[in-house]
Amino acid sequence: MDVRERLQALREQMRKRKIAAYIVPTEDFHGSEYVGDYFKTREYLSGFTGSAGTLLVMQERAFLWTDGRYFLQAQEQLSGSGIELMKSGEPEVPTLSEFLGKELKKGDVVGFDGRTVTGAFVKELAEKTAEKPVTFYGKRDLAGLIWEERPPMSAEPVWELAVSYAGFSREEKLAKVREEMTKERADALLVTALDETAWLLNLRGDDVKHTPVFLAYMFITGRRAILCAQTQAFSEQIKEDLKRAGITILPYESIEELVASLPAGQRLMADERKVSYRLLHAVSKGVERIDKPSPIALLKAVKTEREITHIRSAHVKDGVAVIKFIYWLKTHVSKEEITEISAAGKLEELRCEGEGYLGQSFEPIVAYGAHGAIVHYSATPETDAVLQPKGLCLADTGGHYSEGTTDITRTIALGEVTAREKRAYTLVLKGHLRLGAAKFIEGACGQNLDVLARQPLWEEGLDYNHGTGHGVGYLLSVHEGPQNFRWRMNDNVACVPLQEGMVISNEPGLYVAGQFGIRHENLVLVRKGEKTNYGQFMYLEPLTMVPFDKDAIEVSLLRPSEKKMLNDYHEKVYETLAPHFTGEELAWLGEATAAV
Amino acid sequence: MDVRERLQALREQMRKRKIAAYIVPTEDFHGSEYVGDYFKTREYLSGFTGSAGTLLVMQERAFLWTDGRYFLQAQEQLSGSGIELMKSGEPEVPTLSEFLGKELKKGDVVGFDGRTVTGAFVKELAEKTAEKPVTFYGKRDLAGLIWEERPPMSAEPVWELAVSYAGFSREEKLAKVREEMTKERADALLVTALDETAWLLNLRGDDVKHTPVFLAYMFITGRRAILCAQTQAFSEQIKEDLKRAGITILPYESIEELVASLPAGQRLMADERKVSYRLLHAVSKGVERIDKPSPIALLKAVKTEREITHIRSAHVKDGVAVIKFIYWLKTHVSKEEITEISAAGKLEELRCEGEGYLGQSFEPIVAYGAHGAIVHYSATPETDAVLQPKGLCLADTGGHYSEGTTDITRTIALGEVTAREKRAYTLVLKGHLRLGAAKFIEGACGQNLDVLARQPLWEEGLDYNHGTGHGVGYLLSVHEGPQNFRWRMNDNVACVPLQEGMVISNEPGLYVAGQFGIRHENLVLVRKGEKTNYGQFMYLEPLTMVPFDKDAIEVSLLRPSEKKMLNDYHEKVYETLAPHFTGEELAWLGEATAAV
Repeated sequence: MDVRERLQALREQMRKRKIAAYIVPTEDFHGSEYVGDYFKTREYLSGFTGSAGTLLVMQERAFLWTDGRYFLQAQEQLSGSGIELMKSGEPEVPTLSEFLGKELKKGDVVGFDGRTVTGAFVKELAEKTAEKPVTFYGKRDLAGLIWEERPPMSAEPVWELAVSYAGFSREEKLAKVREEMTKERADALLVTALDETAWLLNLRGDDVKHTPVFLAYMFITGRRAILCAQTQAFSEQIKEDLKRAGITILPYESIEELVASLPAGQRLMADERKVSYRLLHAVSKGVERIDKPSPIALLKAVKTEREITHIRSAHVKDGVAVIKFIYWLKTHVSKEEITEISAAGKLEELRCEGEGYLGQSFEPIVAYGAHGAIVHYSATPETDAVLQPKGLCLADTGGHYSEGTTDITRTIALGEVTAREKRAYTLVLKGHLRLGAAKFIEGACGQNLDVLARQPLWEEGLDYNHGTGHGVGYLLSVHEGPQNFRWRMNDNVACVPLQEGMVISNEPGLYVAGQFGIRHENLVLVRKGEKTNYGQFMYLEPLTMVPFDKDAIEVSLLRPSEKKMLNDYHEKVYETLAPHFTGEELAWLGEATAAV
Repeated sequence: MDVRERLQALREQMRKRKIAAYIVPTEDFHGSEYVGDYFKTREYLSGFTGSAGTLLVMQERAFLWTDGRYFLQAQEQLSGSGIELMKSGEPEVPTLSEFLGKELKKGDVVGFDGRTVTGAFVKELAEKTAEKPVTFYGKRDLAGLIWEERPPMSAEPVWELAVSYAGFSREEKLAKVREEMTKERADALLVTALDETAWLLNLRGDDVKHTPVFLAYMFITGRRAILCAQTQAFSEQIKEDLKRAGITILPYESIEELVASLPAGQRLMADERKVSYRLLHAVSKGVERIDKPSPIALLKAVKTEREITHIRSAHVKDGVAVIKFIYWLKTHVSKEEITEISAAGKLEELRCEGEGYLGQSFEPIVAYGAHGAIVHYSATPETDAVLQPKGLCLADTGGHYSEGTTDITRTIALGEVTAREKRAYTLVLKGHLRLGAAKFIEGACGQNLDVLARQPLWEEGLDYNHGTGHGVGYLLSVHEGPQNFRWRMNDNVACVPLQEGMVISNEPGLYVAGQFGIRHENLVLVRKGEKTNYGQFMYLEPLTMVPFDKDAIEVSLLRPSEKKMLNDYHEKVYETLAPHFTGEELAWLGEATAAV
């Protein structure tokens, strides 16, 4: 079947059930950032392979919403399919829910696989169509009914992360979770995020690209802890260990029945912004739902002493690889053909030399020149640029190690850079340094501090259209909450104070379309500093250990205090990493970290 | 009757109604910052005259909660009353609701005048006593039943603020409010804050100290606008004008019936953090309540072009008075006896010379030496210190003019100041200047920017335990929302982006107990700046026009950029105010504003 035939088959299924509009999002059942092949329904039905997009199928027409990163690609891939491209974020392009609010008639039925959308998503749809109103049908995966030769659901072997890495046993973690449940007077907690289950059980897997997690749900009460997962992925040893920790394993699909079995009068913690519509729908009428984030998110974000020790060492290994990469790039760019893709390959090779390296923590971004201005650029054979010995190359990459997860961006001068590039590089660096050097009172949130990174840009009428930082998991998702550095407040999500032990990225940027892009990213660790009469103060310890490129710094733009911040950081980089280098590389590192 | 007899009379009323605990807060029926004599029930029953405190009467014991400002005063005033002092904020002192959660038994009845507490207050009480549970009785003002010779409710004449000051007619404002109601699909809006009603109707009054408002409620639907107020306070002319604008006047007490008359199925906007328990209780069962802030708060906060023009001129008048005051203080402190109270009197005299001056916008704070460290210090005859020709005097004062409301703090060197005082003065000034010079992107909130004022202090392990800034009304309350500068996020209150036309104070401080206090406060106006490819940028225009005291500045601590900010501001002060001075005062102003 081609895309047109697939859509016709879907429409027939829709007609049988009197569904006027069927929504196919990109998500799996857990809101994961990357999804396995089994879940690529939107790609199967539309032919569009981008990492973000939502398909809407109606009887006469079909539409695909995607964002600026994918306009060109979507245009090409949708051509001939009859699917119309909706350019999200463009003026006058309605959102999906606005569109449905306008197009639907009273009583129309809107369908979707209720496991692939959150409760909050459907709530918003209901609000936007409140005038009609319409009804929702989320019981069946219609695409599944017509998808021939659908890839099976991934069920890679699950493996254990030793307590010597994790810091707490699963029994200890479970006790902590139950303590938090008690504070909320919750009788049960529904865990759907894959990294939360992996963290809680000290287990890892390989069911999701770039994220060592496994497909599973958990349902926790005061007395029971039930893991709903693909039992074939677990060794007998792990099954036994789980049993000993009081954890029962049931089949993956049992979660719905479990949720439904909670008796009326009980209180269930389940966050409608995370939990699927279908699971929320399964909750019995009389159950009181506590609509708050899972307590595991915060517990997981605060790293243990053991984790922190390991993370520091992962960053040393990662720093060695990235410094070797930068040295190689700078010394080879004029001598051999290096492309964006081959450069990324070289860096991966160098990382593989690190002991305990397990793989990339996300799709690497190596973006040369104008490509650097495309924030989520990922080189394809069609776009793969040959690096020239001039201008800037932005490399945003990261790895998973047994000792933790890294994420680093360096913008590298491959030769001569223009005055404009230098100025931009330096303004972004000022923001990065100022945020990195922030001293703040306990209780402050990332939303309070973000301005420190942006101020040098805002003063010039410049800005970057992304957050300044995100939390980073321990051998889990490279993006985790609840902490972050950003200025926008989300009315629906409470701001979270920065706590000792949290790991966050500090990554301001500046993007000049068609010309160049700059981003400077270190991971930092939140730490307690001095306690005075005025309160407990906090500071940020840099974890990432790689110099910034002095070839691209306009030193005259740095304040004395900023020079000191840069020099102090470079001194620390040299002290920490010099023992891992010899010869020319060591000499280069010495120069690259010498005071400005 | 003395306090003991009053408490006994109250207890008898409690027994009749089987009330185990009766709560008497300080509030009037509108959550006003100051309350009229009629509402001073807590003072009548306890003898304690402070501006904040909550009395709890039980059959055997009675308790008064108040904060650090009033520990000494309360101790004295409560002595012999049998009322026990509960020092709010001290370790191990429970809050009122925590205390009740512990002390009460299942089924106990908690009483209060349901008009003096908000719905949110009672909700919190209910949560803290959820284990018992208890019931609430808010129908009767028991204190009113026993209060002999209670002062009448204030009903001062209401007067009109001309459209030439307000910028919009009441018809225009009403139309804007209804637009906002439509966005929320609200059938009715309940307005209880006095400044909101005064703003909406372009009327002012004199029923609350320091705030030119009148006792009233409003109930607004798509077709009706009903003012519930004391009709005797309105002239025939104003009554007619209101009628012509489609506004009906009903007696003050009718509000409860009006609220109750809203039929089931309708949607009522009423904020449980502002609206009294009793009014919320009057809402019919089937009415859907929209628990959001009144839209008037935001409309009122964004000043009109007319208002802004007037506000600038009010600040010129106020600046003249404050500059004359500082000059007088510095030149007379060594020559005659000046006390904190007499100095405040002198400043009031000077303000009275300004055309259109209507009175103080709050209780003036003139605090010398160690008194400056008491954030809410208000001199009494007992504490009134004689000013010496040395050290620092903190003066936080403000006025109402037909052209708007002012609020300014200057910390004045009366002679020699220590190196420590200078350093502290300068650190606070650095923060004040940095926040004042902030350039930021549209959409940013005060919570994003507060750190700019605190950073110079946080870097030294210092801080001040209050917000950096509050909104200021136009000839209304000197404290208004929803905008502010603060870093703490309140989970229950959404952060509000700073909009062009908002007026906010910028007032960082530093307090060294037993030694000195420093605060620097300007009012600033939010304005739109340049629009670039990266967004619309905003900046803050200083409204307050009074120099900072160079005698207390340690110039070597200022960065070049900070010196420029200070010099630019002082130049603007001189340019704007010099035309209003002659002779020695002019010469002094020239020196006081000369570049550092």
